[in-house]
Amino acid sequence: MKALKIPEATITRLSIYSRFLKRLDKKGITTVSSGDIAEGVGVSPAQVRKDLAYFGEFGTRGVGYNVKDLIRYTVKILGLSEPWNLVMVGAGNLGSALVTYREFKDRGFTIVGVFDNDLTKIGKRIADLEVLPLEDLPRVVKENNVRIGIIAVPAKAAQEIADIMVKAGLEAILNFAPISLNVPDHVEVRNVDLSVKLEILTFNLALREK
Amino acid sequence: MKALKIPEATITRLSIYSRFLKRLDKKGITTVSSGDIAEGVGVSPAQVRKDLAYFGEFGTRGVGYNVKDLIRYTVKILGLSEPWNLVMVGAGNLGSALVTYREFKDRGFTIVGVFDNDLTKIGKRIADLEVLPLEDLPRVVKENNVRIGIIAVPAKAAQEIADIMVKAGLEAILNFAPISLNVPDHVEVRNVDLSVKLEILTFNLALREK
Repeated sequence: MKALKIPEATITRLSIYSRFLKRLDKKGITTVSSGDIAEGVGVSPAQVRKDLAYFGEFGTRGVGYNVKDLIRYTVKILGLSEPWNLVMVGAGNLGSALVTYREFKDRGFTIVGVFDNDLTKIGKRIADLEVLPLEDLPRVVKENNVRIGIIAVPAKAAQEIADIMVKAGLEAILNFAPISLNVPDHVEVRNVDLSVKLEILTFNLALREK
Repeated sequence: MKALKIPEATITRLSIYSRFLKRLDKKGITTVSSGDIAEGVGVSPAQVRKDLAYFGEFGTRGVGYNVKDLIRYTVKILGLSEPWNLVMVGAGNLGSALVTYREFKDRGFTIVGVFDNDLTKIGKRIADLEVLPLEDLPRVVKENNVRIGIIAVPAKAAQEIADIMVKAGLEAILNFAPISLNVPDHVEVRNVDLSVKLEILTFNLALREK
């Protein structure tokens, strides 16, 4: 893969295309056009072609794309050819939902450890995992070659957890706490903010009333 | 409020600023600079000033912004001056986590009904709500003046739920199912995709290995 500067919006859509294609494959569909993909995920056909063009020539004019080939390409580009082990901090309702979130498993992600510092949660089982104390995180990270951690704790605890993750050698953090984390440059962070899209909806509905 | 075309990225950041400001207010902080906001949420001070400038003149040069005033403005712009009632479809792990998600409550959102078509879930309690059958959704929407619905069901069930929501008169849908929904133009949809940011992280980590 060339180290071109790919816009993050393209990677975002590639992830969406990839999962849409897997659903087509499950239905037994073998060939797909950029128009089908576009309609399936809600973007324009030109956008689909432009996004895929970053990564070389796929598809045959007039025939379209082979679904299995395109899945293989998108999975490879997204770094998902090999499975990933993850650790999760926060064994509350959101953390528990994420541990059992089927889509993660479908994409090759395995949560190998769930941690909390709440004594009432430690020892509890979530799916087939026992909630462990935070002190065990570095060991689990090391034993399972974990590079990515998920934070699902309240905002006020999130920075402390990020520090622990960085110290344990994690290279990337998916942060569900509604707060901006300070981490060294070599650690990638992406935030999933559960409220922000809801507030985009209320903004738009409030405009309607004018 | 002028019906200027405000970029969605600005509304997104406004939602983030607004919640950051509430945390400052809780700590007793009364004045804040654009630099403080920028640092707190991880954008540039120029970006903060530009975003706020869409909505008029706030703040005093050399003094900064009054925290409570700015909270009031951002809350008003986002349509959050009045509380919102929501309905949720999907009483699985993710739906349950969202019903009890404290941040929603803090922002004035109240989930007034949780629905599922799974007989093993109907009648179950999540927080102080009883899971109801889907047939009850139109009644609950009407009785509580609900305009926004949340979908937290698997991808294959999501379109059917969206259709039911549209028919019940909902004007906006927050969709957690990893699928693109078809709805009439008067219905706003925003998707929260829990996997996509994780795949941006794996894309970036995979690049590192080259």
